[in-house]
Amino acid sequence: MANWKNLDTLKSFSDLKNVKKVNLKSVMSGEEGAKRVAKYSVKMAAGLNYNYAAKAVDDDVLKALEALAKEAELADKFKELYNGAVINTGEKRLVLHQLTRGQLGDDVVCDGVNKREFYLNEQKKIADFANKVHNGEIVNGAGEKFTTVVQIGIGGSDLGPRAMYIGLENWARKTGNFKMEAKFISNVDPDDAAAVLNSVDVAHSIFVLVSKSGTTLETLTNESFVKDALKKAGLDASKHMVAVTSETSPLAKSSDYLAAFFMDDYIGGRFSSTSGVGGAVLSLAFGPEVFARFLKGAAEEDKLATNANLLENPAMLDALIGVYERNILGMATTAVLPYSQALSRFPAHLQQADMESNGKSVNRFGEPVNYVTGPVIYGEPGTNGQHSFYQLLHQGTDIIPLQFIGFKNSQIGTDVVIQGSTSQQKLCANVAAQIVAFACGKDDENNNKKFEGNRPSSIIIGEQLTPEALGALLSHFENKIMFQGFTWNLNSFDQEGVQLGKVLAKKVLAHETDGALKAYSDLLNI
Amino acid sequence: MANWKNLDTLKSFSDLKNVKKVNLKSVMSGEEGAKRVAKYSVKMAAGLNYNYAAKAVDDDVLKALEALAKEAELADKFKELYNGAVINTGEKRLVLHQLTRGQLGDDVVCDGVNKREFYLNEQKKIADFANKVHNGEIVNGAGEKFTTVVQIGIGGSDLGPRAMYIGLENWARKTGNFKMEAKFISNVDPDDAAAVLNSVDVAHSIFVLVSKSGTTLETLTNESFVKDALKKAGLDASKHMVAVTSETSPLAKSSDYLAAFFMDDYIGGRFSSTSGVGGAVLSLAFGPEVFARFLKGAAEEDKLATNANLLENPAMLDALIGVYERNILGMATTAVLPYSQALSRFPAHLQQADMESNGKSVNRFGEPVNYVTGPVIYGEPGTNGQHSFYQLLHQGTDIIPLQFIGFKNSQIGTDVVIQGSTSQQKLCANVAAQIVAFACGKDDENNNKKFEGNRPSSIIIGEQLTPEALGALLSHFENKIMFQGFTWNLNSFDQEGVQLGKVLAKKVLAHETDGALKAYSDLLNI
Repeated sequence: MANWKNLDTLKSFSDLKNVKKVNLKSVMSGEEGAKRVAKYSVKMAAGLNYNYAAKAVDDDVLKALEALAKEAELADKFKELYNGAVINTGEKRLVLHQLTRGQLGDDVVCDGVNKREFYLNEQKKIADFANKVHNGEIVNGAGEKFTTVVQIGIGGSDLGPRAMYIGLENWARKTGNFKMEAKFISNVDPDDAAAVLNSVDVAHSIFVLVSKSGTTLETLTNESFVKDALKKAGLDASKHMVAVTSETSPLAKSSDYLAAFFMDDYIGGRFSSTSGVGGAVLSLAFGPEVFARFLKGAAEEDKLATNANLLENPAMLDALIGVYERNILGMATTAVLPYSQALSRFPAHLQQADMESNGKSVNRFGEPVNYVTGPVIYGEPGTNGQHSFYQLLHQGTDIIPLQFIGFKNSQIGTDVVIQGSTSQQKLCANVAAQIVAFACGKDDENNNKKFEGNRPSSIIIGEQLTPEALGALLSHFENKIMFQGFTWNLNSFDQEGVQLGKVLAKKVLAHETDGALKAYSDLLNI
Repeated sequence: MANWKNLDTLKSFSDLKNVKKVNLKSVMSGEEGAKRVAKYSVKMAAGLNYNYAAKAVDDDVLKALEALAKEAELADKFKELYNGAVINTGEKRLVLHQLTRGQLGDDVVCDGVNKREFYLNEQKKIADFANKVHNGEIVNGAGEKFTTVVQIGIGGSDLGPRAMYIGLENWARKTGNFKMEAKFISNVDPDDAAAVLNSVDVAHSIFVLVSKSGTTLETLTNESFVKDALKKAGLDASKHMVAVTSETSPLAKSSDYLAAFFMDDYIGGRFSSTSGVGGAVLSLAFGPEVFARFLKGAAEEDKLATNANLLENPAMLDALIGVYERNILGMATTAVLPYSQALSRFPAHLQQADMESNGKSVNRFGEPVNYVTGPVIYGEPGTNGQHSFYQLLHQGTDIIPLQFIGFKNSQIGTDVVIQGSTSQQKLCANVAAQIVAFACGKDDENNNKKFEGNRPSSIIIGEQLTPEALGALLSHFENKIMFQGFTWNLNSFDQEGVQLGKVLAKKVLAHETDGALKAYSDLLNI
């Protein structure tokens, strides 16, 4: 059994504080910089590489991080997790999202059920269903094929699947894997559902209702919204809806749905893109084979995360460099900057995955911690961000660590040569330029045109954003978040911080309020 | 002439530090909380109200902020700005975006041109053009009406206009003001342009090319991309494109365009939504009358910002509360959380407007400042964010000030009653609940379920997101950013921090690199 200790009780953490800080500007200049780029790189799955040359680390810092990884028993903790320990202490649950894409250790058997088999079986059910929709065995009431899939879900049932769909939409269109357009309804704002419904042909749409508990108010409300619209169009809602839920939820055995696909309590919403939550919509949109390729990339990346050697484990390395930046260098936020329009919503997904997992002030035993934990995460695609908030990143008073992502090739392949280079080359040239600009800065007599440099970044570089590469990226960040949670001694898998708002909102709707809550409710005409 | 001084040289700033801190949890509980909600509210234009009851202020703090507003001469500085002083010291330029929607002071005459008349004239040209497109006087080569407008621009030529378009799209569809669908191409990633072009009927599309200088590489590249597509479709590009640019740009008098509409150097990209940059696309999409209503809302809000009385000036008040949080309470980031799906990209626009304006380390005279300046800005619409990153906002180790926005009524008006309330009521109940949850928290024996509270927020409440309300919102935040820049003694209107990346990217494309930059370029196959 691993020892779960607070970060500030670890000797290796105290030691880390005393390691000489790296002057990034100095080490990234000249030929030493080129050597770092060659040296500080680690292979990921699906042809990706994690390059951390422009992070404020050197061999001494890395050695200290290795000691921290060891003392914090990160590899052992991950092993306990994938072998089925109750890692989610608050809710007393296993944490099994990796099992949806591969088996890293022992069989995990729960209540007599082999969980890997359970997840595989649900995947097979989804694949069969999707194939039948695609080949016309499952059709609408008029006997016509479905053309559109609409996911109804919020939080983890929305952000991850939506980011993955956008991530592969153009790739799928280009490679002949595009089966159905997907849309998403998430917000309880009635304008969200109304606008999506106005934009689709409901008679040829299949709706995927996603709620693990079957009780998420936003999602049930939007389900009614959709049923209303179907009814008004003279359609039988039960011929247009499927559910993704837990076996014990009220939705599980309802005749309101064409089919129900199951997940369980061991997969947190924000880690559910590789379960049926992502599986149903992505298999319908791109076909089960593409979804399988996505899972394969994630599974391969998961395997790399089991390596106890920090320098060969990209997720663990990324995690510990992040802890170093957060707890020793004092940096409060991290920007995720993909140089790929297809990853436009990937930062929003990571924002949830990271901030909901590690935005906590008590350790896994419920004791307050005396150090800062999860940072604020945000980002937009480059080059758009360059023309927006990069000003602050370059010259603001706070230093923001950056996570770049770039690919050598575009997804669609249509391109133009302007001033001697393609758009894809310009895109890549920009990300290369930014890394060096942030690290090395530039002197100038005019302070206003001066760049201090010393602003750390890393980059994940791939050949192309394929299903495998997207799966590997997803897994990398999920595992990074997990390792950071282990290091901070948090339970990264519950989310008690979302409860109070729900309770108070119910009170408002029941008009059981007083004081400020009543005053705000009155202002808002509730 | 106003005195421009660093924040830390002001007596009122030292005094502010010594004012007793407010225990938000305590003052927002019970009937005192209700009183604060009634008291700490100020009227904005278009029926909006800025309510700051849940900010960590009381009469003593506000008094100190009033002294700061006075000593920093915020009202005088704004007056100098709108009367045509050279406020953008770095680039030696006037700052005239408010003049696109109204005249707050003296005539501003530059090189013999009355600038208000110049902006009005361009608006009129755009309105005439849009009307002719709508009524079929301006048509495509086959004599058919245009159905789609595609904006080509990046940064301020993209984020603001795009956020405004999304902000009004459903309102326009509902109220019969929807004329043409708008799309946006911004990223130099070739997949962005390719995907947009694949999604529109190019034969019936009109393209608005936006670049003030006429030299923005991303935008010119995407222009070529579009011209290629038009040519391949056998179409004459010059019959499908208009330019929004400065009179001195290479695009200004080109026969490549159906028309050219002008702006000038006195309107920064991030403040250009009310100029032709937003005007062309919004007038084509919704008609010039809707754009005029949007300007009217902004103009009315601008007027409120001229008030030297802090408590009657919502933008100045919002600005100074923000400075208090940033420089005295030590809060590094701010989240913008609209409870309106139509404002889904409004936070991304504010992220640029704020971080590009005030993310700076030197004052307006080019001297380094000894205090923190612009915070990191980010956000997503509620209730989506509640199911995502709110965990960290409620229970994370850092305190994040929050800016809520909510409306009593939806835009489309289609709604359903579930469990006794409409979706709109649920939406509003949630934002009310969140404010109180953040401020007051909740005790619990289980630390994991405990909410410390004391997390400050404000809310802007409106009747409905109309063109006027959107204009007022835009103006509010533009002016807030301006007042914060004045307080920090920054030049909020240049962006030297974006230059170095451009220079280095050009070197990469010219293969004039060595060291780390060459190494990264090789890794990315450039």
